[in-house]
Amino acid sequence: MNLPAVLDDESVKDLRERWPALSPDERVDAFARVPREEAFDFFLSLMPLGQSQILQALPPKERLVWMRTLAPDDAADVLQEIGEEERGEFLALLDEPTRREVSALLAYAEDDAGGLMSPRFVRVRPDMTVDEAIRYLRRQTRSPVETLYYVYVLDHDQKLLGVTSVRELFTAHPDAPVHTVMEKDVVSAREEMDQEEMARLFAAYDLLALPVVDGENRMKGIVTIDDIVDVVQEEATEDVQKFGGMNALDAPYLQTSFVSMIRKRGGWLSVLFLGEMLTASAMGVYEKEIARAVVLALFVPLIISSGGNSGSQASTLVIRAMALGEVKLRDWFRIIRRELAAGFTLGIILASIGVVRILLWQQLFHTYGEHYRLVAATVALSLVGVVTWGTLSGSMLPFVLRRLGFDPASASAPFVATLVDVSGLVIYFNMAAFVLSGTLL
Amino acid sequence: MNLPAVLDDESVKDLRERWPALSPDERVDAFARVPREEAFDFFLSLMPLGQSQILQALPPKERLVWMRTLAPDDAADVLQEIGEEERGEFLALLDEPTRREVSALLAYAEDDAGGLMSPRFVRVRPDMTVDEAIRYLRRQTRSPVETLYYVYVLDHDQKLLGVTSVRELFTAHPDAPVHTVMEKDVVSAREEMDQEEMARLFAAYDLLALPVVDGENRMKGIVTIDDIVDVVQEEATEDVQKFGGMNALDAPYLQTSFVSMIRKRGGWLSVLFLGEMLTASAMGVYEKEIARAVVLALFVPLIISSGGNSGSQASTLVIRAMALGEVKLRDWFRIIRRELAAGFTLGIILASIGVVRILLWQQLFHTYGEHYRLVAATVALSLVGVVTWGTLSGSMLPFVLRRLGFDPASASAPFVATLVDVSGLVIYFNMAAFVLSGTLL
Repeated sequence: MNLPAVLDDESVKDLRERWPALSPDERVDAFARVPREEAFDFFLSLMPLGQSQILQALPPKERLVWMRTLAPDDAADVLQEIGEEERGEFLALLDEPTRREVSALLAYAEDDAGGLMSPRFVRVRPDMTVDEAIRYLRRQTRSPVETLYYVYVLDHDQKLLGVTSVRELFTAHPDAPVHTVMEKDVVSAREEMDQEEMARLFAAYDLLALPVVDGENRMKGIVTIDDIVDVVQEEATEDVQKFGGMNALDAPYLQTSFVSMIRKRGGWLSVLFLGEMLTASAMGVYEKEIARAVVLALFVPLIISSGGNSGSQASTLVIRAMALGEVKLRDWFRIIRRELAAGFTLGIILASIGVVRILLWQQLFHTYGEHYRLVAATVALSLVGVVTWGTLSGSMLPFVLRRLGFDPASASAPFVATLVDVSGLVIYFNMAAFVLSGTLL
Repeated sequence: MNLPAVLDDESVKDLRERWPALSPDERVDAFARVPREEAFDFFLSLMPLGQSQILQALPPKERLVWMRTLAPDDAADVLQEIGEEERGEFLALLDEPTRREVSALLAYAEDDAGGLMSPRFVRVRPDMTVDEAIRYLRRQTRSPVETLYYVYVLDHDQKLLGVTSVRELFTAHPDAPVHTVMEKDVVSAREEMDQEEMARLFAAYDLLALPVVDGENRMKGIVTIDDIVDVVQEEATEDVQKFGGMNALDAPYLQTSFVSMIRKRGGWLSVLFLGEMLTASAMGVYEKEIARAVVLALFVPLIISSGGNSGSQASTLVIRAMALGEVKLRDWFRIIRRELAAGFTLGIILASIGVVRILLWQQLFHTYGEHYRLVAATVALSLVGVVTWGTLSGSMLPFVLRRLGFDPASASAPFVATLVDVSGLVIYFNMAAFVLSGTLL
């Protein structure tokens, strides 16, 4: 990139657009050209990975300023991106109270409620009046807080008693005690709740923030919806990459090193390849049949790919429905019935197309010899069998994986296809032996 | 389901959990059992589809109460779910000013900024003092507003001059005029902006709400982040279903009728099947070679699936990176270079595994005849070619689709596999003719 020494407004907008596609070096170089008055906003809007890249490139003296602009939960996320060796050095740049907060947050797993939460929320006491509470809020907001939307009511042990909002306080009678205007039935998350589950809570209750409590209902922090948007995107990316038959990348595509990408892709590809080798063995079993009726070999790719395609449709639907909480483990029997019917119907549709194709080609080119009717019957019956079987396996594989404690999203299109290919061959050649014995075989 | 006449707290929580899996009839039945004091919250937390199902099942008299609990943007979403014939009937239930607001919103496409926005936001004038503004806010919040987080500063023509927040007003000097404390550089969306682009704006600027303006910068409404979370989930589901090789469903899996599901899946499956028929033709071209060296047929499924798997990995990565804005059309050449190198490396890895397998089986079972070394060479060279070609096609297909105006997410694993299968056969049999001519062929 060729950039001017200081970027104008348009170029900064352009930079935001281009940001995800830039290499770490280009990012550091471009950030240095953002005008001073914009740099603060720009830095805060970056994802933790980008922030850590910039911090690590800055001279030690400048690091201090930028580290201290970060809220404690964001600082903890940035430190997660920085290697363990350097982490202490960056932690030391924070002021004492923030350092304590950040260290506490670093103890949580990155994907837990505890790892996402901010310890800076607004709190009031239950026995304050509404007017006192509003004045107290105005004082608290002078130091940074994560959101003003919800106001949490805590007792002297920091136990969460209820929640109210600035809006409710504004409209309540000024002399009413806070505990009379608060909502007592608070939706909260335990520190160790997984981020995906938390995203579902936000969606189910239309929340803007969620309080995080420990085992004794003591409030530890809040998770805000802007962090959840990132979580939802991140989880969708992981799912999508697993669907494509690979391990999820840890960083954006263009930020991932060649070696780490080959490792993520090559691992799964090799596993799938080893599985697919069974097709060579299966074909070996039917080598004599193929030698006698070469016409059988012609339809092998068509038959097995139909099983794979219908299977990957079914597994995709079930995996996504599971991720959104629409389908649970106990629903497996409902899904079997539904997918059995769907697979059979789809099989009939493909078989009909296949028969038309074979009869048409026979009329036009006499491709399939004197027994073309039997060949067509073999292909059609195999298609019904393979598509039904593919659909059923594809829809059940996510259940099996989840039951065994694996991520159902690993039941990717390539995985399902590999699984179905071998059984597709067995179905096809047995059908052929049945239909063609005495004529071609 | 067997439910008591009135649900207790635990059962309501359970119902929220089970909700997405229920049929429309079960939903209506279950909702009738939610206790009165919970029903309001419960109804408001549902997605528009669920709300419309309940509204349509209620007796006309009750519909009025529930329709009026909805904010105008939510009411518009519900009416989108209700058929055009019945829509007028439900619209008539609203009070006059809300009906006007909702009718205006219905004119926008569902997926546009205009279709997502709420016309109820808090506004102040630039020449008010901070103290006046706060008092004015307290008055506005007595009628329902979407969010208090941002306060928009409008002139007499409703033109958007700036934005401030309750927090900033709280901490500013009470006598300062609003225009001195507002942020003038406002990020806003035009009415016709697509929801996916809006989701990217929310992420890039870490917004909680986004003002929507017309061509003359007059403020029309705001879109809040809770609607954007739904958008992100919805778009991810559509992408994931397209990846699985099918048209995206319009409703949750278990809510989709059997016929509409067969149509969505059968359409794509038939198209893929027609494409895959080319493999039968391609195999037909090499029928003589297969008859002479049946051993070649054994590796057909292995070779073509390797191309398909590597291609679907590459397309998945590129599609997701495009959806997140990490990769743009102009980046195509960077991607080609990267994926060419990746494909070649992955091809070498698979070829090595393949050679080891063939040599090992030959030692153990003497499966592949006297020319087993040449067979191994054919398979290995074909794998390098097919995997490189598959990776390259998989990564470029999303670019081609986007360039032609299609959704790049249609470059699903099954689509890529079908595309690569035919070319994989051509590569394999030509490699065989080259290596084996004079011996097996």
